[in-house]
Amino acid sequence: MPELRQNPATKEWVIIATERARRPEDFPQKPPETETPGQIEKCPFCEGHEGETPPEIFAYRAYGTAPNSPGWWIRVIPNKFAALVRDGLPKREKIDHFFRRMDGVGDHEVLIEHPKHDFTIATMEQKQVEEVFLVYRERYLALCKDPKFELVMIFKNHGQAAGTSVRHPHSQIIASPVTPQHLRHKLEEAMRFFDDNGECVYCMMIQKELAAKERMVLETDNFVAFEPFASRSPFETLIIPKKHSSSFQFITADETKELAYIAKTILSTLYKSLKDPDYNYVIHSSPCHEKELEYYHWHIQILPRITALAGFELGSGIYINTVIPEKAAEFLRNA
Amino acid sequence: MPELRQNPATKEWVIIATERARRPEDFPQKPPETETPGQIEKCPFCEGHEGETPPEIFAYRAYGTAPNSPGWWIRVIPNKFAALVRDGLPKREKIDHFFRRMDGVGDHEVLIEHPKHDFTIATMEQKQVEEVFLVYRERYLALCKDPKFELVMIFKNHGQAAGTSVRHPHSQIIASPVTPQHLRHKLEEAMRFFDDNGECVYCMMIQKELAAKERMVLETDNFVAFEPFASRSPFETLIIPKKHSSSFQFITADETKELAYIAKTILSTLYKSLKDPDYNYVIHSSPCHEKELEYYHWHIQILPRITALAGFELGSGIYINTVIPEKAAEFLRNA
Repeated sequence: MPELRQNPATKEWVIIATERARRPEDFPQKPPETETPGQIEKCPFCEGHEGETPPEIFAYRAYGTAPNSPGWWIRVIPNKFAALVRDGLPKREKIDHFFRRMDGVGDHEVLIEHPKHDFTIATMEQKQVEEVFLVYRERYLALCKDPKFELVMIFKNHGQAAGTSVRHPHSQIIASPVTPQHLRHKLEEAMRFFDDNGECVYCMMIQKELAAKERMVLETDNFVAFEPFASRSPFETLIIPKKHSSSFQFITADETKELAYIAKTILSTLYKSLKDPDYNYVIHSSPCHEKELEYYHWHIQILPRITALAGFELGSGIYINTVIPEKAAEFLRNA
Repeated sequence: MPELRQNPATKEWVIIATERARRPEDFPQKPPETETPGQIEKCPFCEGHEGETPPEIFAYRAYGTAPNSPGWWIRVIPNKFAALVRDGLPKREKIDHFFRRMDGVGDHEVLIEHPKHDFTIATMEQKQVEEVFLVYRERYLALCKDPKFELVMIFKNHGQAAGTSVRHPHSQIIASPVTPQHLRHKLEEAMRFFDDNGECVYCMMIQKELAAKERMVLETDNFVAFEPFASRSPFETLIIPKKHSSSFQFITADETKELAYIAKTILSTLYKSLKDPDYNYVIHSSPCHEKELEYYHWHIQILPRITALAGFELGSGIYINTVIPEKAAEFLRNA
């Protein structure tokens, strides 16, 4: 079973994923840059290979087709190499009166976005992307209900520099039994801004970006997308709902489709103008046990991985960005 | 001139390094994995190419040789693509009553560790590594004296996954005019532990690790090296002085040589047993304006970059580590 361990000095949690542990002597082991045809044939995420994955949790599939057989167009399965697993109770234990650990209780799911291997969000049909985002919503709502889970994080790793070697289009969902320090600090800062200004810092950011225009990338009825003023890396893009809301759980089905549209448009622009760059995206939402918070605002962060995180970034938390956000926004608007 | 921008929602700083800016359309641009002989011949860090770098700031060189000519064995120069520069004043400005920025005032130096191209800390002579660490100390002391600088960070990027494409052995030194949020949170947690327990959390960690033994890698008279209980990645190693001290500025010359010995031994072990993995190391020290703090403890963090940081890590701050720290320590002890 995986294990959660807390750094006693920083209170940051780490997941020791024993289930996917390799022997130390197997390192370093870099995955190949390109897939061979043989690997593609063996892809367990492709239609017709349903028996090679753990049984599905959820699927959009044609009427009358049986679970774990062809006929689906989106499929959610447990991650075979799960970082966190469902069994057990998230009980904190103290070792040696100093170190804290707990069993790696949580959930780790893979959302297969398409039956075919050679698509990405950028190249799929709009309707398919809408359904991917509707499934994000379904799974978010289902997992957030479980009182064992404090945080549900939906994210995507696209390409090797973003942490995946599996090319079949997929997203991941992790439900964590702890709220990370990272999010706590973010909530604290947002709360402090609210106390000082009587307003949500993200709501004010949206107003400022709409007024300044120079970092705007795209606007729809309910969402804005812009390059943040302090973008951490070239082409970092934030998608954020105009209407104040602290959690992804409050999004409606119609808004979800609109979100899929704006996300796909930006990812397609990145795909075309930067030649399919590696990227991550993450849905940032408040902890599950919170009701609507007036000081926090959910958002999607798209982070192209075209420059490496080096010692200074990892050591200081200060990122060095080589492209001016206003220039990046202009480039994306014109692309 | 580079620019520092603060994220209004998180208060995290980002450096927009306009000096090294590439045009957006030049992305992505991956550096080649291996150097061609032509590239090695042109390396500006090699002996005989002194005229191709900015004038040296500091050097260990043979008696009677002139600055910026051959005869040196360690050389410190300004970074040609500096993230922060010396000119100007670190004055915070508010834009649009919301966003904060300041000129990118600071310092960014490159420490060339050897006149020859094909060495690393792991393969250099012990004496050379001692002198590299003595120069770390020299530069740290010199930069920390400047009241404009709040933090001096010494770090090394080794290999492409660690953020460098320059193979010539070198370290970097950045002096920042702001204390990053990251370090503030670390100091706050350490202070809280001190308030609760009347003891430095790192001092207690050293005692616990020496007693538990299973995560220990190496011990010398004045230092211990171990795999942290909550290691963020396989083979993360901490080197920490046994005697309490919050800042690298208080290290003696003799202790510096001993530190060089323990660092070189560990880096050599990683080099041999994991086949020259990419890695970063960072000297973590308290802010320059602080005197000796009873609740913080300086240390070196060695972070092999053999697994990628993916969306979950970047989004949550929770790292997924695939090797149990006790197993990693055992492997390094036996290597």
